[in-house]
Amino acid sequence: MRTTTAYLAESSGAPLRLQEIQRRELRPEDVAIDITFCGVCFSDVHALQGQGPFPLVPGHEFVGVVTEIGSAVTRFAVGSAVAVGNIVDSCGTCTMCAAGQQNYCAKFPTLTYGGHDRQDGTPTFGGYAKEYVAAEAFVYHLPERLDPASVAPLMCAGVTVWEPLRQWQIGPGMTVGVVGLGGLGHLAIKFAHALGAHVTLFTTSAGKADGALELGADQVVVSGDPAAMSAQANTFDFIIDTASAPHDLTPYLRALALDGTLCALGALGSMEFDPYALLIGRKRLASAGSGGVPATQEMLDFCQLHGITADVEVLPAHEVNTAIARLERNDVRYRFALDMGQMSAP
Amino acid sequence: MRTTTAYLAESSGAPLRLQEIQRRELRPEDVAIDITFCGVCFSDVHALQGQGPFPLVPGHEFVGVVTEIGSAVTRFAVGSAVAVGNIVDSCGTCTMCAAGQQNYCAKFPTLTYGGHDRQDGTPTFGGYAKEYVAAEAFVYHLPERLDPASVAPLMCAGVTVWEPLRQWQIGPGMTVGVVGLGGLGHLAIKFAHALGAHVTLFTTSAGKADGALELGADQVVVSGDPAAMSAQANTFDFIIDTASAPHDLTPYLRALALDGTLCALGALGSMEFDPYALLIGRKRLASAGSGGVPATQEMLDFCQLHGITADVEVLPAHEVNTAIARLERNDVRYRFALDMGQMSAP
Repeated sequence: MRTTTAYLAESSGAPLRLQEIQRRELRPEDVAIDITFCGVCFSDVHALQGQGPFPLVPGHEFVGVVTEIGSAVTRFAVGSAVAVGNIVDSCGTCTMCAAGQQNYCAKFPTLTYGGHDRQDGTPTFGGYAKEYVAAEAFVYHLPERLDPASVAPLMCAGVTVWEPLRQWQIGPGMTVGVVGLGGLGHLAIKFAHALGAHVTLFTTSAGKADGALELGADQVVVSGDPAAMSAQANTFDFIIDTASAPHDLTPYLRALALDGTLCALGALGSMEFDPYALLIGRKRLASAGSGGVPATQEMLDFCQLHGITADVEVLPAHEVNTAIARLERNDVRYRFALDMGQMSAP
Repeated sequence: MRTTTAYLAESSGAPLRLQEIQRRELRPEDVAIDITFCGVCFSDVHALQGQGPFPLVPGHEFVGVVTEIGSAVTRFAVGSAVAVGNIVDSCGTCTMCAAGQQNYCAKFPTLTYGGHDRQDGTPTFGGYAKEYVAAEAFVYHLPERLDPASVAPLMCAGVTVWEPLRQWQIGPGMTVGVVGLGGLGHLAIKFAHALGAHVTLFTTSAGKADGALELGADQVVVSGDPAAMSAQANTFDFIIDTASAPHDLTPYLRALALDGTLCALGALGSMEFDPYALLIGRKRLASAGSGGVPATQEMLDFCQLHGITADVEVLPAHEVNTAIARLERNDVRYRFALDMGQMSAP
């Protein structure tokens, strides 16, 4: 086993503390990665405040540099700049994996943290750490010319909104709504705008309007304003809902045009809506989670081409508990990236 | 006003009694129809047992013969064999009407019964009657060579399943599931089969298997058998759910393939499902209600071409209360048509 340092929580609600953890020795297909930046995802907050599993090292959107390669590695060399997302393995044989949708692996994908290695059963610990060891099939080349810290959140938040936007073939002439302006929402605006769509942000806070317009939104609608919402009825081809708190989906179903789709990414606890709002206009409700390997690569290529990255606030890694606390109260614009070169006891 | 006879219920749960009602005098665009057969829809049961509105004359899928035409009528003559469905008017100007989706009219379509005439505000009374008066734009030519009694249910049950099957472009090579084998379900099987799809019936009763295979199903799965249901996981492009009683949609979401769609037609009271079953495989939940004028015509043309009609049990109109009672306990294979030539006190 290899020893590295990581920010680890022992139990639900406990603070992250710097300590040593073990990683596996490299298998032939593995690379060892010196992590430079790791994004802070709302999933990290959920896991830390919730069910873990504990002990927990969060972090599933990170970038770094390859420091060692296994004997069978072909795509990377020592010194390669790389990125890793929230999946590090899958069964590889089910119909979902065969379709490049490892995120929906019928035998469940191996999560970057909080999962178990498929070969030795050891728990996976995430990227709030100095080093990570991963099979090269789930490691990506860092796009050149993009700021590494700002690429890190693309690996989870980015692909999570990218895949549905691509699946529903968002492009010029389409009207797209984005619900919520956080880590996912701000990237959804950037992507949908770059794909050529007319983009509307739905937000609870009028104060977010200027930020959304800067990101590429064409219009901002305050979701708490019934008149403003009614004015949007039957107009959207596609709405991507990134709000993480449970909320009524009915107003967004009503805002869809005939045969439009509402893709709700965050409302996993419950999906509350009036079935009649789905019926009238033959509308569709969908969900999606994360992305497969091909979509992740496609997203990175698109970002390189269009110069798109996440808007990040970089904090030194030793301020990790501050980042978690601030994210919990949505006090970030729009994603934290931890500088893993600045690890010390928090 | 014109006087005709009809089966009318005075209040919720009351039996239907034969009595005189008033219809409007013909406007220039109207036709008067001598009704020959009227289908008995589950909506009729719901309305009679529920909220009405009362007094209520049910019946929104009927066929008959034109006996009189208004001065501006161009498509029909006295003696034309015609059919009418569950919508007899709409605003005509909203985006839904402009798209030929009068069923989703933003100002609500005028229902064949239980609605209000858009011009004079009088309540609409349905087709459990000797005569109906309707604007020709919502009247269809009865397809030649098809049994009129068996065409009647196409006008509601038929178009209700036809429109989603067409919208989701069901055709050869596609796997289609049909949930429930009643008025809607049996027509969904016939249509999906005629469209070239591989058709599976999901039913609670193994006893319905033979009937389904005769209708064109390739396979029958008993939905209460967990092993049989698990074997269907991730295999269906499209499932049309016609079951009218509330039920958990989760098993059908799981049966969908990647990017598949479950279109739930009947579960209007509630839509119970595990959101996670929607997420895994990026699946879609949809609903739909009735059909627009173009789809109704298209369905009738398709039925004429393929010789498709509903399987009906014809009852004399004076047995209307028996039909309602038997339909309530699903004792019909697969739709009742009332012979309106046999009206007398029930």
